[in-house]
Amino acid sequence: MTADRSAPASMFVRSDVVFLLGGVAATVAAGVTRFVPSGPVVPFVASAIAVTLLASVVGRSVEQLGDRFGPGATGALQSALGNLPELFIALFALKAGLVTVVQSALIGSILANLLLVMGLSFVVGGLKHGPQNLDSKRAREIAVLMVLSVGALVVPSLAAHVHTPAEPHESTLSIAVSIVLLILFALTLPGSLKRASAEPDRHSEPPRWPLAVAVGLLAIASVAAAFVSDWFVTALEPAMEALHISEAFAGLVVVAIAGNAIENVVGVQLAAAGRSEYAFSVIIQSPLQIALLLAPLLVILSNVMGFTSLTLVFPPLLVAAVCIAVLMAVFITFDGESTWTEGATMIGLYVVIAASFWWG
Amino acid sequence: MTADRSAPASMFVRSDVVFLLGGVAATVAAGVTRFVPSGPVVPFVASAIAVTLLASVVGRSVEQLGDRFGPGATGALQSALGNLPELFIALFALKAGLVTVVQSALIGSILANLLLVMGLSFVVGGLKHGPQNLDSKRAREIAVLMVLSVGALVVPSLAAHVHTPAEPHESTLSIAVSIVLLILFALTLPGSLKRASAEPDRHSEPPRWPLAVAVGLLAIASVAAAFVSDWFVTALEPAMEALHISEAFAGLVVVAIAGNAIENVVGVQLAAAGRSEYAFSVIIQSPLQIALLLAPLLVILSNVMGFTSLTLVFPPLLVAAVCIAVLMAVFITFDGESTWTEGATMIGLYVVIAASFWWG
Amino acid sequence: MTADRSAPASMFVRSDVVFLLGGVAATVAAGVTRFVPSGPVVPFVASAIAVTLLASVVGRSVEQLGDRFGPGATGALQSALGNLPELFIALFALKAGLVTVVQSALIGSILANLLLVMGLSFVVGGLKHGPQNLDSKRAREIAVLMVLSVGALVVPSLAAHVHTPAEPHESTLSIAVSIVLLILFALTLPGSLKRASAEPDRHSEPPRWPLAVAVGLLAIASVAAAFVSDWFVTALEPAMEALHISEAFAGLVVVAIAGNAIENVVGVQLAAAGRSEYAFSVIIQSPLQIALLLAPLLVILSNVMGFTSLTLVFPPLLVAAVCIAVLMAVFITFDGESTWTEGATMIGLYVVIAASFWWG
Repeated sequence: MTADRSAPASMFVRSDVVFLLGGVAATVAAGVTRFVPSGPVVPFVASAIAVTLLASVVGRSVEQLGDRFGPGATGALQSALGNLPELFIALFALKAGLVTVVQSALIGSILANLLLVMGLSFVVGGLKHGPQNLDSKRAREIAVLMVLSVGALVVPSLAAHVHTPAEPHESTLSIAVSIVLLILFALTLPGSLKRASAEPDRHSEPPRWPLAVAVGLLAIASVAAAFVSDWFVTALEPAMEALHISEAFAGLVVVAIAGNAIENVVGVQLAAAGRSEYAFSVIIQSPLQIALLLAPLLVILSNVMGFTSLTLVFPPLLVAAVCIAVLMAVFITFDGESTWTEGATMIGLYVVIAASFWWG
Repeated sequence: MTADRSAPASMFVRSDVVFLLGGVAATVAAGVTRFVPSGPVVPFVASAIAVTLLASVVGRSVEQLGDRFGPGATGALQSALGNLPELFIALFALKAGLVTVVQSALIGSILANLLLVMGLSFVVGGLKHGPQNLDSKRAREIAVLMVLSVGALVVPSLAAHVHTPAEPHESTLSIAVSIVLLILFALTLPGSLKRASAEPDRHSEPPRWPLAVAVGLLAIASVAAAFVSDWFVTALEPAMEALHISEAFAGLVVVAIAGNAIENVVGVQLAAAGRSEYAFSVIIQSPLQIALLLAPLLVILSNVMGFTSLTLVFPPLLVAAVCIAVLMAVFITFDGESTWTEGATMIGLYVVIAASFWWG
Repeated sequence: MTADRSAPASMFVRSDVVFLLGGVAATVAAGVTRFVPSGPVVPFVASAIAVTLLASVVGRSVEQLGDRFGPGATGALQSALGNLPELFIALFALKAGLVTVVQSALIGSILANLLLVMGLSFVVGGLKHGPQNLDSKRAREIAVLMVLSVGALVVPSLAAHVHTPAEPHESTLSIAVSIVLLILFALTLPGSLKRASAEPDRHSEPPRWPLAVAVGLLAIASVAAAFVSDWFVTALEPAMEALHISEAFAGLVVVAIAGNAIENVVGVQLAAAGRSEYAFSVIIQSPLQIALLLAPLLVILSNVMGFTSLTLVFPPLLVAAVCIAVLMAVFITFDGESTWTEGATMIGLYVVIAASFWWG
């Protein structure tokens, strides 16, 4: 800690500065557009960029904070706080009654991770390093957990769509399933923390930020993310109308990608560096957290807080798309090898699914 | 045989005595409740326990009988007689017009085996022995056979639900598919008998029961099981009403678990003993027999005997649930390793599916 | 080339002669039945046989031609011309407004290859050589590509059936998806050519036919195939009526098997010769080409040429059947071993699916 204070110059590396200053600038810009008339699109773009950058600052603060307490703590903190901006966006959107956007964004995040980002990481890694190896027990174990989680997540949708007597009870059923999912999250957390800490080269650097800076930035960025999420949701509806984008497409593609942009870049960068196993484990972690933590939490919070009630009854095409994406991801993992053509096909599949939602 | 007669004291081991006396007591109790007014729930519980214990006595008699003629014979006898109590229950239920109960119980047995029992065996085995190994060709071969069997089993449902012209012919189609399934059962029987007899440590003990005792107990227990199955079905309807349980839930959960209770315990006990491969093969054998033998046999018998006709057109949610469960089972097998968190997630998935059927 | 001319006697081997003379005879017979009244069934059978034999002559010409330019060229030519007869049949059927037949035939070809032909090859290979090995990275890679291709192929159907807003746009969506599929075909072509040329013992023989003969026969057989395809489609409708076959069943079973007969025989022959890996790669190549090349090409051509517009919105049961078949194929590949009982179960599954379509 003394070392940190005596060398403040090296405390923030260049990318820290970019994200911090960028986050401040974009937040200010997004705030200004709320009072200065600037059409429907500018406030939306400004707040989308601000959310993305603030999400990244939250992520960095968590990492710096966690490094002080060992990799297990980082994992726990990341689980608890890493999805904070997505949670804010979803809560404000639910408050504004945009249930379709939230549902599409939840599934869209899973799709974007499993098809688009994983596909990109295979294309980048495959073109640079040839066929990449995924042939580990750990990779298969995560894949199986994901298929189980998503399986549980989609049961209420199936029940409501194809089992008429369950339809009027979709809210009750969703809450019951959410509790099961949260219990499973708690049960699997120790295992995933252990996995994360065993990750080779995961945290090679010592913490750079003093404790006070890390806590302070985390607090400020989180509060700012909450405000900007509100602005983002407010700007979303006029922007959708101006750009003729349906609610489903906005959630599935725009919100899902904005909410995951930075962590997605990390996955692709790891693949470019030839660390395909680690890239896979980073990319697949996010859908797991959405299925086991974020979605059930939102269902319970939306009911407790009296917002428009979110249920786990998703539109049928979202259910079908997520099932296809999960099957793909698991087959590719079990394949043991990832090639760039597989990656290209996954991106093609993502484009095809996204195109289907163009007409809302 | 002479040895057996000279040592009658060791003929029945302690668990034999428990099941025999328990079976007699429960059967008598169930019979008494038919004449002595005892409300709607007591006769149901008594006959459920009696069926379960008689099923176990049938199973033990078959094993003792088979041991005289080698493991191949045991397998053949078990295939032929092991599902006898389930067959009785289903036939009496069809006679009583409870088609929904029978259909739910067939799928429910598959679900209970693949999710609940396999999940329990992973939790118990995993917590006691750490990650368990499933990495054998045989395990994968059984899993593929199961996915093929269940695939064939669900085609008539798909045809009736999504292919309108096939709807009025669902009975004809079901009979045609049943014949195909029975042919497949006959073709795969030699392979599964060979597998069973190659099972390490399968029958380490010599037969304890004299031939006459084994045959006699088998005959008595089978006849008793037939009677008690009738009482069980008769008691089912008033109990469902009294307990506010829907037909679908009663079949899926109550009947399915009552009909499989003892064999399920065996699977979990094997996992607890660290014999995960054998546990898997025992647990997955039952769904295979339901798909390839019991279900098609019931379709044909119900038509021949003039009972309410059973078809293979299951409600859509049952079809979706069984497809999810089979996919899970096969992914977990191919995974090559089973952990207790995977087991917990499978149990969670079972709870979620069962909850969906609460509203019948 | 001089060697070829000096030894014309060995230019055509016996099977060449059979196919050439058979093709000519069947073509003449099919032509005659167009002018001589011969009932509804004879012209249909004659033109079906003629199409099958001409398809085989096209295939042989392509192979002889390709052998001059190396295995890469053979692969490219086979991709371009191997599905020519199927393309002709489909185009004439679309011109005649038989959209259901074309859609069923496309899916039917995939089903016939993945279930019937692969099942037969497992039965034949398994009974002759015992369990066959499929345990290669290449096999798994092809299987994953196929699951991705078919995944993309079925998205428009899902969108139209379960996502109401997309329904009126099914034509636009189908064209967009077709373009994506064709791009994926172009991207994966180099890889599959490289795989084909690395195939052990693929072309052990030197070219037998002089260049002029190969080119000439290719041209003549292709033109003849075009004519006979027209006659086949014309004869199809009266034959369906006379034989009481529905359009869906005719496409799914009759057209699909007629269009693939010869290449299917090759796959089974390879399995009989104990070359299970090569048989698998031949059998699975055809569904890949249908999903990535033939189907999207037909969608675009039917729109460009102003025929009855073909979309990728298939009837739900076809979608469900193709998903089941693809899942089977991929599980069996990943299984690493193929047994004759697995093969028998696949054939059983094919019979069950075909039976469902009996009532059109």
